[in-house]
Amino acid sequence: MLPVPVMKQVQEEFLDFNHLGASVIEISHRGKDFEALLAETDVLMRELAELPENYEILYIHGGAQMLFSAVPLNLLGLQPSKKGLYVETGNFAQIARKEAEKFGQIEVVLSSEAGGFKEIPTLTPELVDQSASYVHITSNNTLYGTRYHRFPKTGSVPLVADMTSEILSRKVDYSQFGMIYAGAQKNLGPSGIAVAFVRKDLIGHAPKNCPKLLDFKVYADNHSMANTINTFAIYVMNLVLKWLKAEGGVGVLEQRNEAKAKRLYQALDQSDFYSSVAHKDHRSSMNVCFNLPNETLLDRFVKEALAEGLYALKGHRAVGGARASIYNAMPMEGIEALAQFMAEFERKNRQSTF
Amino acid sequence: MLPVPVMKQVQEEFLDFNHLGASVIEISHRGKDFEALLAETDVLMRELAELPENYEILYIHGGAQMLFSAVPLNLLGLQPSKKGLYVETGNFAQIARKEAEKFGQIEVVLSSEAGGFKEIPTLTPELVDQSASYVHITSNNTLYGTRYHRFPKTGSVPLVADMTSEILSRKVDYSQFGMIYAGAQKNLGPSGIAVAFVRKDLIGHAPKNCPKLLDFKVYADNHSMANTINTFAIYVMNLVLKWLKAEGGVGVLEQRNEAKAKRLYQALDQSDFYSSVAHKDHRSSMNVCFNLPNETLLDRFVKEALAEGLYALKGHRAVGGARASIYNAMPMEGIEALAQFMAEFERKNRQSTF
Repeated sequence: MLPVPVMKQVQEEFLDFNHLGASVIEISHRGKDFEALLAETDVLMRELAELPENYEILYIHGGAQMLFSAVPLNLLGLQPSKKGLYVETGNFAQIARKEAEKFGQIEVVLSSEAGGFKEIPTLTPELVDQSASYVHITSNNTLYGTRYHRFPKTGSVPLVADMTSEILSRKVDYSQFGMIYAGAQKNLGPSGIAVAFVRKDLIGHAPKNCPKLLDFKVYADNHSMANTINTFAIYVMNLVLKWLKAEGGVGVLEQRNEAKAKRLYQALDQSDFYSSVAHKDHRSSMNVCFNLPNETLLDRFVKEALAEGLYALKGHRAVGGARASIYNAMPMEGIEALAQFMAEFERKNRQSTF
Repeated sequence: MLPVPVMKQVQEEFLDFNHLGASVIEISHRGKDFEALLAETDVLMRELAELPENYEILYIHGGAQMLFSAVPLNLLGLQPSKKGLYVETGNFAQIARKEAEKFGQIEVVLSSEAGGFKEIPTLTPELVDQSASYVHITSNNTLYGTRYHRFPKTGSVPLVADMTSEILSRKVDYSQFGMIYAGAQKNLGPSGIAVAFVRKDLIGHAPKNCPKLLDFKVYADNHSMANTINTFAIYVMNLVLKWLKAEGGVGVLEQRNEAKAKRLYQALDQSDFYSSVAHKDHRSSMNVCFNLPNETLLDRFVKEALAEGLYALKGHRAVGGARASIYNAMPMEGIEALAQFMAEFERKNRQSTF
């Protein structure tokens, strides 16, 4: 979900952007109105992320999975080894690693797969081959509800993070990273686009046969407009960033997100009907994953929740169980409604199982 | 511009798609509502295009320029020669050819550059190296206002066309082509996505190191949802297709487009103040390009037109002059208003130049 005031504004001015008598999806991306919108989006993004000046902001077609290809294409050439190191903490981390294998020598340096991806393995600098071009992590894992509370130190090897499911939901010191990227559709706006923060010295290392729209330098040199940009996505993102700023910024949202997650984890921990999936030390503030005693109860839970207006509680088809995705735009009232529904559902159904 | 009834419907149901209580940009692309929308879009697209069953419809991230890379990546391997032939009829044709050079042996088989791209050179089967993997053309050239009235015969070598600026604006026998593609933002919907019609036997020939989201097989095998699709673009396209069907289909639109273009070309031909850019035999029905006697008059023309609500009449920065883009959604009233403005502008300004 996206913030209600943002959605209302999109609707209100959909036929008439900036009093131009045309929609934002109809105006030219080369016109001064759209260029001003894009420039303003950059300023808001940099301010809210507290992004250092030596990082470029790129808007890349295709979402995070396009970056699964672009990261190795652009970064493997940083070192003669052409080696990329991957930490596997879930299925998206694995998809990213498999894609990277097309382009160079890829090693899985750590994996939590054996334990069902319930925790984040500890990467220490000693484990990082200092001849590698980069280390790739997934900062928050939507399917298992885990996240890095602190990010690993990787010595002189650039750390790369897929932050799709938690971008701008918590304060992050981006100077720890060579680059981060995020599909827009969780916390920022509509699907089909990704945002990347890339340290400037890491731009310009793609091979000559890198497809144009996967080359960071093409994006950096053309303010992400080497071709027609996804204008609608930029526009909605711009409004989401303004909303985020008006709410008090990323720090305020982070506190709110922590409080939201705490409410749900406490409910899970106090119950012997529900069980939390993620290890306590690695719990996500964006995705709270949990199980019910059996599949019958799970199905009933999802169905009855839907009838009460609580959407999308079914876990990802790859892992099952239940999942509450509580991104930036989800208010505490939504969490409270869910917690109360869960308590009531437990009260009504526990007799049948215990 | 997009059809007014489509824009109004997007606005009206923006907060509540299919009575779900959520926007189409908020619902899951894996849910049954979105999957039904995508399936319906396919059916409408195939029906309106009269597309044969042996062609797949793919929705590809990034617009036509992503296809500039994807076409050679997917098709060069069709023949041992790994050779691609390009006909250059404008700057987008050249950008496509330059991008293809990253991936194989590319030859410019014909070019109209020497004549300022004012005509479409005639490609005969004898000019086509039958060992080549494909021949690439740009069916309509927005900057110069030219188009192919008939498509060339290329023997057994698949013909590939970039139809970005005229898709579904004229009846086309797609069985003449190996594949066609089009960025959505001219006649179909919002930017950031492209549609491709690809003959099924041409799918599955990309090399192993082809980036996932540039591989036609990945799109074909996953109904274009290997990752999160641009849901908003699909939704708007769906409504545009419904509008097109309600208007009577592509044949009716084609007649209307011909009549619109004829009105403007007649005005140009009757004037010695304005001069048409494209050769009479190759005139586009989508982009009518013309010059004024000098730059001062051109600037005044664009400015005064804008004041009368006639937008975007400035030619592309690469060629100058004036250009009326009269895509499917532009009604005859818009053309009439422009023709009248042009006549009035000529009357007021011709004394100063003659």
